[in-house]
Amino acid sequence: MANIGVVSATNNQVILRNYVSGFPKESDLYIAPTTIDLRVPPGSMAVLVKNLYLSCDPFSRIRMEKPDPSSPASVALAYSIGKPISGYGVAKAIDSGHPNYKNGDLLWGRVGWEEYSVITPTPSHFKIHHTDVPLSFYTGLLGIPGLTAYVGFYEICSPKKGETVFVSAASGAVGQLVGQFAKMAGCYVVGSASSNEKVNLLKTKFGYDDAFNYKEERDLSAALKRCFPEGIDIYFENVGGKMLVAVLENMRTHGRIAACGMISQYNLKEPEGVHNLATIVYKRIRVQGFAAVEFFDKYSKFLDFVLPYVREGKITYIEDIAQGLENGPSALIGLFHSKNVGKQLVEVARE
Amino acid sequence: MANIGVVSATNNQVILRNYVSGFPKESDLYIAPTTIDLRVPPGSMAVLVKNLYLSCDPFSRIRMEKPDPSSPASVALAYSIGKPISGYGVAKAIDSGHPNYKNGDLLWGRVGWEEYSVITPTPSHFKIHHTDVPLSFYTGLLGIPGLTAYVGFYEICSPKKGETVFVSAASGAVGQLVGQFAKMAGCYVVGSASSNEKVNLLKTKFGYDDAFNYKEERDLSAALKRCFPEGIDIYFENVGGKMLVAVLENMRTHGRIAACGMISQYNLKEPEGVHNLATIVYKRIRVQGFAAVEFFDKYSKFLDFVLPYVREGKITYIEDIAQGLENGPSALIGLFHSKNVGKQLVEVARE
Repeated sequence: MANIGVVSATNNQVILRNYVSGFPKESDLYIAPTTIDLRVPPGSMAVLVKNLYLSCDPFSRIRMEKPDPSSPASVALAYSIGKPISGYGVAKAIDSGHPNYKNGDLLWGRVGWEEYSVITPTPSHFKIHHTDVPLSFYTGLLGIPGLTAYVGFYEICSPKKGETVFVSAASGAVGQLVGQFAKMAGCYVVGSASSNEKVNLLKTKFGYDDAFNYKEERDLSAALKRCFPEGIDIYFENVGGKMLVAVLENMRTHGRIAACGMISQYNLKEPEGVHNLATIVYKRIRVQGFAAVEFFDKYSKFLDFVLPYVREGKITYIEDIAQGLENGPSALIGLFHSKNVGKQLVEVARE
Repeated sequence: MANIGVVSATNNQVILRNYVSGFPKESDLYIAPTTIDLRVPPGSMAVLVKNLYLSCDPFSRIRMEKPDPSSPASVALAYSIGKPISGYGVAKAIDSGHPNYKNGDLLWGRVGWEEYSVITPTPSHFKIHHTDVPLSFYTGLLGIPGLTAYVGFYEICSPKKGETVFVSAASGAVGQLVGQFAKMAGCYVVGSASSNEKVNLLKTKFGYDDAFNYKEERDLSAALKRCFPEGIDIYFENVGGKMLVAVLENMRTHGRIAACGMISQYNLKEPEGVHNLATIVYKRIRVQGFAAVEFFDKYSKFLDFVLPYVREGKITYIEDIAQGLENGPSALIGLFHSKNVGKQLVEVARE
């Protein structure tokens, strides 16, 4: 079949310039135009999508690291120099060779950081059925961060009414939800964040019982002792390092730690050592690393749970939206300097 | 009732001389005689026991630390200066005011480090019903270390046939059993120990598939990579510190770490920092601190499981027995210098 009638378009992409060690810089990425055919090849199962929203995730930092050639996992994970980076996003099908998707369908899942992507749908691509809520929410509240908060808190931490919960990076994509889930579960919840503005948000918008600005605390352990005189039952770990040390000092017996990220450590050439792990033995603590992508079987249960709250305005979700793909690199790098207030994402286009 | 007919005896005790920081020394303990009535007071529910075997446990080191007065748990745990230390032991009832114990009964549980103890039976004292096996086994194979190996391996690590298991301090009281349980479960198991003699025991007596002397390895991570080219599914953690760092580097996705002790850290004023905990997130690892004393409800199930193997000679258990209470301090201190070969205990008396 001849390619008669195929329309092509400019496709701007966010490209990795070099592997990163230490803090990433905007100059580690650059924008470059390519040209893309706006049709999938005949017979292909692929879907050509127009990207609407891209999620900025701390995990991208790990993928910018030079891969260890002896580790297949590391090689599989790493971005490639000279190619567009990728992540989770919300997109609209423009042309589809896949039986499950037709033109105009909305979906979320893995896409490239570019205006248009050709994707091969996998079980980690989800068709969007509920469009009465902001589409951008599928990068956060209704996407991976939401599922992370849900499975991490309910499945991994097994909260009981009256327990005490501490959340680090509490105003972030995941943390702002964990606080609200903890209140729903009848827990006492405290969060830490990187500015007084965020601390204020925690207390006024996200229902946190208390909160502190970790940058203004000289002694993190003392700050936790002030907030939790009886100790911490559940820690939702997003940062690692010094904060983890302080939390271990303040955990209660049989405490649970759900670890979905350790953002404070990703850019350090010499990560901070945690010297008090014997506490895990003394206090019989459980630490569970987890990734929401392994809980996609819970996604529809999660949506059923969370959508009514969203529609009734009983869950608040704050987004920090960078406008245009060209502002993607600074939005992504800003995560590592705590620049975002709430879930950071990039709006590439509005439908 | 007058005390007519009460016989008294000399009761030698092992006394704490001072709180310990850093490595404990024999001189931190001393032996002193006291006098004890060999009858319990009329109306008392106590049991007077003659101590036969005392268990030497790394955990005693924690109890020698100066307590933190602001921590009730620390105060409750700490030994008292000038008083006998305590631990688990095997004893014989000499006189009993308790309905569950009569003179001549054998039991194991918490006793003082002394020739005779007055105990108030608790749910953590167990009457010994099976005496066709060495009584000393109730300090090890059939006591807390055995239960630790059993619940730690079967309950906490959920082993599957074909999985790979690494055990540190593998020839110790707990480790020698974990290796044998791992083989029973169809796993591949490797152990580390502190001498070539112990490494030899692991391979020839305890069924370990492979073993290494960690003191002769310049690079622990490389040693583990050599033994586990495909990585480690289960780590039975007894030591902490550098070994934990190396293990994390070699864990497989969804690995499980059962942590019942971190002996390498107990004597360090500045414990070693573990800098690669983000691995717990990347590999979705579960770390579970636990203590066998919280699993006493499994003890009879454990005995039913293990006794047939012991009687058939299908489980090997090596003990390192110090003779006489006067050799107790050096036996206990020796644990922290890897002097013991197998389970270290003290024989105070033979029935």
